[in-house]
Amino acid sequence: MMSPRASADQARRTKAAIVDEVVSRASIEGLEGITIGTLADGLGMSKAGVVGPFGSKEGLQLAALEGANEIFRREVWEPAADRPPGRERLEAIAEAWISYLERDVFPGGCFLTSASCEFDGRPGRVKDAVDGALRLWSSVLEGEVRTAVEAGAMPPDTDPKQVSFEMNAVAMAVNQARQLRADDAAGERGRRAMARVLGAPVPSA
Amino acid sequence: MMSPRASADQARRTKAAIVDEVVSRASIEGLEGITIGTLADGLGMSKAGVVGPFGSKEGLQLAALEGANEIFRREVWEPAADRPPGRERLEAIAEAWISYLERDVFPGGCFLTSASCEFDGRPGRVKDAVDGALRLWSSVLEGEVRTAVEAGAMPPDTDPKQVSFEMNAVAMAVNQARQLRADDAAGERGRRAMARVLGAPVPSA
Repeated sequence: MMSPRASADQARRTKAAIVDEVVSRASIEGLEGITIGTLADGLGMSKAGVVGPFGSKEGLQLAALEGANEIFRREVWEPAADRPPGRERLEAIAEAWISYLERDVFPGGCFLTSASCEFDGRPGRVKDAVDGALRLWSSVLEGEVRTAVEAGAMPPDTDPKQVSFEMNAVAMAVNQARQLRADDAAGERGRRAMARVLGAPVPSA
Repeated sequence: MMSPRASADQARRTKAAIVDEVVSRASIEGLEGITIGTLADGLGMSKAGVVGPFGSKEGLQLAALEGANEIFRREVWEPAADRPPGRERLEAIAEAWISYLERDVFPGGCFLTSASCEFDGRPGRVKDAVDGALRLWSSVLEGEVRTAVEAGAMPPDTDPKQVSFEMNAVAMAVNQARQLRADDAAGERGRRAMARVLGAPVPSA
């Protein structure tokens, strides 16, 4: 008989394996497109075993979204986290973001972008979670822009929300070009666009 | 008994009514998400009557895509078509594009963007048609940029593909902000971003 701790570890590992499976399937088939039956087959589990730990399909979708967010954070935010806050960090984020899209980290392209397309017409907890994740990410970018402006590394009339909006726009277009037509030039176009969005550094006085 | 012409007219009207229904549902539920049963109920027709004129669900999806393209052309391209080719027309296209997104012409947002998200992981004729429509639109934009450069209204080192890529990026971000969170400021952000993508007019010598 397993000790309580071993059993809790086992339950955690099972949940993580289910989430991994959902994340990788959903980036291609969509979060609504996944079926519990296919997941159960893929994992060699019963349908009840797949849904049980999450309470419902919606609970499973929310867990997958959280798992995908964690991957995004690791891929795009962490590589830039040791750079000085402000302009340098923004430039590092832009590069990590493009690189993440170029490397097709999710087999079906950016998970958050897909989920946003899929759920924008389906009010509910999943849509709210997608919106929340995108807002949180925007607020991180806006904070770095403000820091850059305060440090004099971006012009004083820079609008942080506008910069964050345009960086997101560029990432969406890179994602579309790669996913729809495997466009290998998309990354470089994205880098040029990001550089234009961030503008030339303000020369120090 | 109907004359052959009246009968052909009737068939055309029926097809058009089916396509309209698919276009308006699919912008919310997705082109894959629509079911023949729901369409048949909505139209008061039999399932066979809905699919028959198009041969298959895929045929129906392709017809809907064509119908949506026609709406896009009418909304974004036609209002700019009487402007002089080149920079002025590009500016008019940018404005019409943002206005089209602001007015939620499709209830679920830009049809082509949704279809691109939905089909980028599903190889086949629908994906190819989405890609073809986006490429055609890009080539229209690129042609206008080239004309603007030749006329000296944009800098000689302007890259038409880059401008078209960035205009599309802006439109995608406006669409996302409106669809996901009904952001009324998205249109204005989009206008500012489009203006930046097109750059200041080159002063005439």
